[in-house]
Amino acid sequence: MAAKKKTAKKKVAKKKTTARKKVAAKKTAKKKTRVVKEKPKNAFYAQSGGVTAVINASAAGVIETARKHKNKIGTVYAGRNGIIGALLEDLIDTSKESVATIKALRHTPSGAFGSCRFKLKSLEENRREYERLIEVFKAHNIGYFFYNGGGDSADTCYKISQLSKEMGFPIQAIHVPKTVDNDLPITDNCPGFGSVAKYVAVSTREASFDVGSMAKTSTKVFIVEVMGRHAGWIAAAGGLASTDDTPIPIVILFPEVEFNQEKFLAEVKKKVEKFGYCSVVVSEGVHWPDGRFLAETGLKDAFGHSQLGGAATVISGMIQSELGLKNHWAVADYLQRAARHIASKTDVDMAYAMGKAAVEFAIKGHNSVMPTVDRISNKPFKWKVGMAPLSKVANVEKMMPENFITKDGFGITKACRTYMEPLIKGEDYPPYKNGMPQYVRIKGVSVPKKLKGKFEL
Amino acid sequence: MAAKKKTAKKKVAKKKTTARKKVAAKKTAKKKTRVVKEKPKNAFYAQSGGVTAVINASAAGVIETARKHKNKIGTVYAGRNGIIGALLEDLIDTSKESVATIKALRHTPSGAFGSCRFKLKSLEENRREYERLIEVFKAHNIGYFFYNGGGDSADTCYKISQLSKEMGFPIQAIHVPKTVDNDLPITDNCPGFGSVAKYVAVSTREASFDVGSMAKTSTKVFIVEVMGRHAGWIAAAGGLASTDDTPIPIVILFPEVEFNQEKFLAEVKKKVEKFGYCSVVVSEGVHWPDGRFLAETGLKDAFGHSQLGGAATVISGMIQSELGLKNHWAVADYLQRAARHIASKTDVDMAYAMGKAAVEFAIKGHNSVMPTVDRISNKPFKWKVGMAPLSKVANVEKMMPENFITKDGFGITKACRTYMEPLIKGEDYPPYKNGMPQYVRIKGVSVPKKLKGKFEL
Repeated sequence: MAAKKKTAKKKVAKKKTTARKKVAAKKTAKKKTRVVKEKPKNAFYAQSGGVTAVINASAAGVIETARKHKNKIGTVYAGRNGIIGALLEDLIDTSKESVATIKALRHTPSGAFGSCRFKLKSLEENRREYERLIEVFKAHNIGYFFYNGGGDSADTCYKISQLSKEMGFPIQAIHVPKTVDNDLPITDNCPGFGSVAKYVAVSTREASFDVGSMAKTSTKVFIVEVMGRHAGWIAAAGGLASTDDTPIPIVILFPEVEFNQEKFLAEVKKKVEKFGYCSVVVSEGVHWPDGRFLAETGLKDAFGHSQLGGAATVISGMIQSELGLKNHWAVADYLQRAARHIASKTDVDMAYAMGKAAVEFAIKGHNSVMPTVDRISNKPFKWKVGMAPLSKVANVEKMMPENFITKDGFGITKACRTYMEPLIKGEDYPPYKNGMPQYVRIKGVSVPKKLKGKFEL
Repeated sequence: MAAKKKTAKKKVAKKKTTARKKVAAKKTAKKKTRVVKEKPKNAFYAQSGGVTAVINASAAGVIETARKHKNKIGTVYAGRNGIIGALLEDLIDTSKESVATIKALRHTPSGAFGSCRFKLKSLEENRREYERLIEVFKAHNIGYFFYNGGGDSADTCYKISQLSKEMGFPIQAIHVPKTVDNDLPITDNCPGFGSVAKYVAVSTREASFDVGSMAKTSTKVFIVEVMGRHAGWIAAAGGLASTDDTPIPIVILFPEVEFNQEKFLAEVKKKVEKFGYCSVVVSEGVHWPDGRFLAETGLKDAFGHSQLGGAATVISGMIQSELGLKNHWAVADYLQRAARHIASKTDVDMAYAMGKAAVEFAIKGHNSVMPTVDRISNKPFKWKVGMAPLSKVANVEKMMPENFITKDGFGITKACRTYMEPLIKGEDYPPYKNGMPQYVRIKGVSVPKKLKGKFEL
């Protein structure tokens, strides 16, 4: 860019020598001014909150689509470590990333640009942060704000679009849905959920086969703890491990259902008596009637370290001491949401489509919206991209419908299965080299800062 | 079989009417007698101990190969739930399983015929059990004993071959190596290990990408606990997550190295300061200098249940309280050894080859041996099937070589990498239906019992 300006100056100098040239120079200058005026706005993209196996697929959708519309969108700048990258004016120039790198984002788990857990306060509480964002966007000629996250970031996105108008630097803010928690409203599901659901369903099936073959003389119960502090979407996916052609005795513990130790142990006992073994899928959010999480043991070990025992260890201890049944337990934690190697193809496709649609919406002039997955039919499974106004997305949490949990509180209904099965369908394996998946890392070239003074988070 | 005998009787009756026919009848009878005498011996196959993602591939190797040599091996009977199936005369007739089912065993994790944790005592202590085995084998005309397991079952296998000779009913006993622990001697590696190693390497890479993208404002350390009570083979596989083209800061805690809290925390701190994050792979067998496992917390929760907190929870508490670093932890447990969806192709091929070789050895008249993987070269990786005498396998545990662990005790050396990398190479995906892997279950038709009286285990 600097080189071009120099050339322009030289040209202008030469042209000053004759009247005819002067006119020409004027015309050129005018033309140039016009070009500058029409120079397309840049875009800002950031990843927010807990990452998923497919959030980078959305990033690829955003960047690849923007690259196809260079007349409308200049450069996509990504926030380093999410929205704090914008606050700190720490921007990554995605135009420095190769075509191959951006393509490889589609099969790379985690947040390639860095994510963050940083919730902007309300406008009233901290207007300074919002103003800073718009100041940074203005400095870098950013007219598009693509925010890839869950409920909180939808809210931030909404506020940006409102405030930027007020501040006279209108920014088109589009939210790109992402969350393993599957709790955004309007959209059929949230990209990220399908893959974690597939991981949980596959892992539960595999471990159930394992415990089933050991049960005669050894382990009779297998317990796996999965994510989902507030909603049982992920735990429900454990139920998909059992199908008509491969039935498996599974007890699911949902955060939606108050934990009843007696009833639970009776259910485990019944299943072990009938099938010889059983599996338990327990959500990290399962709690006692008084609201305490099962996982909160409040214990310290001999060295004074807090015992961060999960719900699985509590369930395990209970089954051992009350039923005397040998059991094994696993806690999937990050493994479940990072497991790109077993991602759902449907989920990857949706994640990419959401990123792509976000850019297309922006180009069409939409603002303050979020692309959604709209389900058309279940059999065959068909869906299309829809659009939701952020005003209806922000601060609305979608809970699991009551009719997705069986009456006894330990299983999933047919309705739940009908909803969930298409979301785990299809495999989309990453490429491998020497037995290892080839995940990409970005170069992450910084955009030179334009603002003076430091911003304190 | 019963129908054939009837036909034979009728024929003999008719032929009694003339002298010529009498002679003919005599000849037929002779021929029949000879056929009975030559009827090939049946085989017994059993799965032993903790199952793996590929032990059923060995079963497929045994059964498919035996089916190709019906002139030498009659029917393969499998022990229901391992060796106790033989003791209880609870045999599964594998000839009732379809070609498709046996083929599908190759991609099905767990022990399809049931496994058990049941160690036969020494001959001196419980000769009765060994005698019972041989009695059952005699009753079912079993001349081949294929035992698919680790060190203990190699020992049982060895004793069977010795004792059967003594008891005048010689049985060819062939051990088929299997164990995720990778601790059998002579063989380059144990089928089952390559797949668990691949799971741990892939999962560690994925979760490390995850924590790396969260580290700026949130989780800085990810901890995963893996199997391996006595040896660090599986923990070492975590080191494969980091390669020259994808470096990852990883601290490995081996059972071979006495845990030193101060040194460990300093290492984590150093890595987090340098890279912003780090991953810890901790073996369940890590112990304090006094021999106590880290996992032994000796705690009980408010309900009096024992807290079966794993090593990961202890490490997590320590990092939180001593370094103040937010961390997440996972315990892979059965997920790691059941993860057929991410099995190593090399491992699957080896597991199948071991089963196949066992039958071929038997046909050639070998006894008291175990097929082995013999490594020919590293680059390119080449191997062949070898043979080891059980006398040299039984009661020998292969530990990890000292030069596989880095001097600081927290990583793997190049020698370890050279050894391990080929074992996780290649993918061998199971077939999927509606997003779920299609694992097979056997029909498991029982062989009618021939012995009277019950045997008490």
